Amino acid sequence: MTKITHYSPVVIDVVESLSDLDCAVVPQENTIFGSVVETYNALRILQHGFIRGEITLEIQHCLVTRKGVGLSDIDCVMSHEQALGQCRGFLSKHLPNASRKKMDSTAAAAEALLRSPDGLKSAAICSKVCVTMFEGLQMLYEGIQDEKINFTRFYVLAKNHCTKLPQLPAPCTHALFRITRISTDSPKMSIIFEALEIDMEVTRVDRRPKVSNIPFQDVHFIEVKRSTNEDSHWTQSVDCATGRIQSMGVEAQVLGIW
Amino acid sequence: MTKITHYSPVVIDVVESLSDLDCAVVPQENTIFGSVVETYNALRILQHGFIRGEITLEIQHCLVTRKGVGLSDIDCVMSHEQALGQCRGFLSKHLPNASRKKMDSTAAAAEALLRSPDGLKSAAICSKVCVTMFEGLQMLYEGIQDEKINFTRFYVLAKNHCTKLPQLPAPCTHALFRITRISTDSPKMSIIFEALEIDMEVTRVDRRPKVSNIPFQDVHFIEVKRSTNEDSHWTQSVDCATGRIQSMGVEAQVLGIW
Repeated sequence: MTKITHYSPVVIDVVESLSDLDCAVVPQENTIFGSVVETYNALRILQHGFIRGEITLEIQHCLVTRKGVGLSDIDCVMSHEQALGQCRGFLSKHLPNASRKKMDSTAAAAEALLRSPDGLKSAAICSKVCVTMFEGLQMLYEGIQDEKINFTRFYVLAKNHCTKLPQLPAPCTHALFRITRISTDSPKMSIIFEALEIDMEVTRVDRRPKVSNIPFQDVHFIEVKRSTNEDSHWTQSVDCATGRIQSMGVEAQVLGIW
Repeated sequence: MTKITHYSPVVIDVVESLSDLDCAVVPQENTIFGSVVETYNALRILQHGFIRGEITLEIQHCLVTRKGVGLSDIDCVMSHEQALGQCRGFLSKHLPNASRKKMDSTAAAAEALLRSPDGLKSAAICSKVCVTMFEGLQMLYEGIQDEKINFTRFYVLAKNHCTKLPQLPAPCTHALFRITRISTDSPKMSIIFEALEIDMEVTRVDRRPKVSNIPFQDVHFIEVKRSTNEDSHWTQSVDCATGRIQSMGVEAQVLGIW
């Protein structure tokens, strides 16, 4: 796998855990904060792993401290950057002078309250379940995210496209393509989209900088869903679409079918 | 302007400064870190302001401290999150245990070294020019970004499309559309792209969550450049493309022509 250094260690660790485990779950998109950059950075270099499902969960962020610590004691708030981003309004209003500290995950922030020398001056933004997972913590506020409608959608990754997972939807209706226009005379975006949308519909387009020495080159991630009602042949449809795009001189890989 | 709470105050402040100033410059995209989320969040609600130009600058991040502070003294690194992201490799190698503190800008981080009680235990990631701007600072390392090829592209905003700016390219060749598919029976992406690409070419597609109560609705930002060699009528071409898209029942606004 190509070594790059600018991604969150957590998402890439989860993806790399597929060498030992049967499946891994990574956050794809949040309704407030948008696409999860670290996940798309990891998908840029994904070679071993295949998306086989999706899960959408409602997110309720809580402000958690060590027992006995009150709002006026807090001069630092720790969490994953997505959670810090989703609670900006609450933090601006209630803790405008507290610094923000990015952690690898919301659970890591909760745990750090108990380990850190600054634990008596800090709070974590995390899930309610952390208060029962880690003894010595208390919840000060529940549901502190700016938007009360807050969902995160996750991709479920398996080792490869043959891995059997429980509770897979049948039949499959989604796919994710990774597409790179490699030369300046590559076809226009509308031609690529038209080649895809013969029997599917583009639902998400994300782009990340390509890991290369040429500035402003992009990798596109195009998620599609089936637009016909036929029950079968989805895998074949996805393969045909890939072939059509590759025949135009565009790099295309299928990163998932679910 | 619709009030939303989850954007960086700095980018939105810059955009709002157009009520007093003739032009404003906001970062659009970096070659390592990708699109600047705060800028696209501000563009979601842009009503007063119009993109009239672009600038691309090479970025050289430096590690700066107060005079006399060495690498082993540093337990906190402050900067804008984009700069922290662009220097992750350096920080992991040289300051693995230092916390990261997000600031509103790289210059604000440099200034905070002189004001903060933790200034003797902190470093800032900022431009070299900060060492001459703020007396009492020194540069420990220069060019610490992970990728040595590091450019940021900026949009130049004016009050409106009639504002005269110096050094505008003539003739104009670029435009940015904000597009929202408002119903589930909206046309497919390929149809929208085809309507655009009659005499232009899509160069960038970005999406952000729409500010609404319906989860997973998107706003798309589609940047185009002229694909014909004709010298004139670019504004008219952009207006015609907007009309074609609106006639399909898709919301479309032109956010800039340059």
